[in-house]
Amino acid sequence: MTEAVNRQFYLHQRPEGRPTSDDVRRRDVAVPSPGQGQVLIKNLYFSIDPAIRGWMRDEPNYLPPIELGAPIRSTTVGRVVESRHPDFAEGDEVWGMNAWEDYSVAEGGTLVKIPADNQYPLQYYLDIFGAVGMTPYFGLLEAGQIKSGQTVLMSAAAGAVGSLGGQIAKIKGCKVVGLAGSDEKCRWITEDLGFDKAINYKTCGSLVDAIAEACPEGVDVYFDNVGGEILDAALLNLRDHARIVFCGAISGYNAKEPVPGPYNWWQILAKSAVVQGYLVSNYFDRFPEGVKQMAQWLEEGRIHFREEIVDGFENTLEAFQKLFDGTNEGKMIVRVEDDSAA
Amino acid sequence: MTEAVNRQFYLHQRPEGRPTSDDVRRRDVAVPSPGQGQVLIKNLYFSIDPAIRGWMRDEPNYLPPIELGAPIRSTTVGRVVESRHPDFAEGDEVWGMNAWEDYSVAEGGTLVKIPADNQYPLQYYLDIFGAVGMTPYFGLLEAGQIKSGQTVLMSAAAGAVGSLGGQIAKIKGCKVVGLAGSDEKCRWITEDLGFDKAINYKTCGSLVDAIAEACPEGVDVYFDNVGGEILDAALLNLRDHARIVFCGAISGYNAKEPVPGPYNWWQILAKSAVVQGYLVSNYFDRFPEGVKQMAQWLEEGRIHFREEIVDGFENTLEAFQKLFDGTNEGKMIVRVEDDSAA
Repeated sequence: MTEAVNRQFYLHQRPEGRPTSDDVRRRDVAVPSPGQGQVLIKNLYFSIDPAIRGWMRDEPNYLPPIELGAPIRSTTVGRVVESRHPDFAEGDEVWGMNAWEDYSVAEGGTLVKIPADNQYPLQYYLDIFGAVGMTPYFGLLEAGQIKSGQTVLMSAAAGAVGSLGGQIAKIKGCKVVGLAGSDEKCRWITEDLGFDKAINYKTCGSLVDAIAEACPEGVDVYFDNVGGEILDAALLNLRDHARIVFCGAISGYNAKEPVPGPYNWWQILAKSAVVQGYLVSNYFDRFPEGVKQMAQWLEEGRIHFREEIVDGFENTLEAFQKLFDGTNEGKMIVRVEDDSAA
Repeated sequence: MTEAVNRQFYLHQRPEGRPTSDDVRRRDVAVPSPGQGQVLIKNLYFSIDPAIRGWMRDEPNYLPPIELGAPIRSTTVGRVVESRHPDFAEGDEVWGMNAWEDYSVAEGGTLVKIPADNQYPLQYYLDIFGAVGMTPYFGLLEAGQIKSGQTVLMSAAAGAVGSLGGQIAKIKGCKVVGLAGSDEKCRWITEDLGFDKAINYKTCGSLVDAIAEACPEGVDVYFDNVGGEILDAALLNLRDHARIVFCGAISGYNAKEPVPGPYNWWQILAKSAVVQGYLVSNYFDRFPEGVKQMAQWLEEGRIHFREEIVDGFENTLEAFQKLFDGTNEGKMIVRVEDDSAA
């Protein structure tokens, strides 16, 4: 092992705007050794998520900022190559919060073992069975408290979280309206995924009016991944006692100036609405329940999703940048190298 | 009755910034006649509230905007002079949502009868037994879900709502920190009202740091009457799963440009916090329970409050303007004329 190289993307400087190869750089370092209670894993898949952009800021957040010089934090799926933790053995497949690098050392307690009889592609544990699937699952059922008959408005509805969320809300008997940025995305979520309506926010004219037309009785639950102008338009369409699941704010992640909260902030009071700041990690203990439910829906053909798998460690930064262009289709994942070579 | 004059303040034009006598004008009109199911009352006291400024805007709100030419909407205490509603008789004392005018016609269903055996000053039904007392009562207990041992941060803590709120939170076993704009106000809320700490936000330097020092374990419940920079400072001091009771935003009421939501909006997500848009009117059915509790605390000497009573109908606008200077001490009320003359 000691002669192997550990390729790594690390944070050289904090990005202003869209992260560049000046901000996120590559280097080769030595493969680390696990200490007592730790596990060395070979990473097979990286999860490429908008949230990572937030961790690059030097601001208070739900996780500490990525330190300058540190590898880029990310959820990964990997295989145990050396274990000094009693719950893990060489060859175990695991997922957890690691980094964009070939080899990570993790505390055993932070890793989740993938069942030995797993029949699904490994990267599912970075999407439908991982945070991407659990985010809309607990976000709608717990933070959003959706109920049958309610109107749910999904932002980024053709995205990984939004497309799963809309399908979950449909299964639960809600009317679901999705916001997406192209006609093809709108077609996909309505025709293939069963959303009731879709709004192309780039071409619809007044988004406030378009939401009002699609949701004539108002919005009961707005699931917000984006913030900004889309959030502001949603706020003007709330029903009394509406709930806003505040899950992300991608519109502001690359901003160079401080981004204010919504201009229509007052509507929260006017409609006696609730904004629930939402982190899927609060439901970590309940992931097995969510995974079981998602697997069942998957087998029943009631849930569909898309992955965009980018091959090769060296393409990781480019895959990340693509998130902010809105051009990716489905959950973005990097396959570090062929499984067979791992 | 028909020869009496009905003096009235009405909305001539929508204010930009602080309302002036060009925006809110006086006129004399005829005394109206009640229709079927309605009641004519002689107003004795006007409640002078920041919320009225919001109703002057032509924007969606929890009540419709005051129309141009219409009298200024306000809670009042009055005496029935003519009733065409079975529940009210001449001479009954009542409170309800009426207007800045000598005589109002109200739907019977919108008025609350003051008990015939009432032993308190009539204007108490505009403050401690009215919306001003019920706002912090239900705001903290229901919207804020305060629990013994929690840290509660009160904005506008020397104001009518804030000063009562802090005392209620103390009775419920919370640690209470108040924000106020003068040393005298800070002295009053700590020495006379029993707040644990007070911060003069005008002289404390960094408000973020001052709150952090006063609330080293973070803020569990922030009661927001003000919005703006004070809200932003509070957001940087939230404990995980904190609750923000969004009750008002006086800092923005006179703004001429759209006021954004808080710059530290992201902290709501980062701390899994809840913003509860709060209208005391949602708890209208439970007012009797709240009034009973406040009366008991009042008799036990556990609740203190201040009123600033301005004498004379003609001084109503001036009293209203004073709210936005931060110079009023206690709940602002206009006594329309001597009770004896009513």
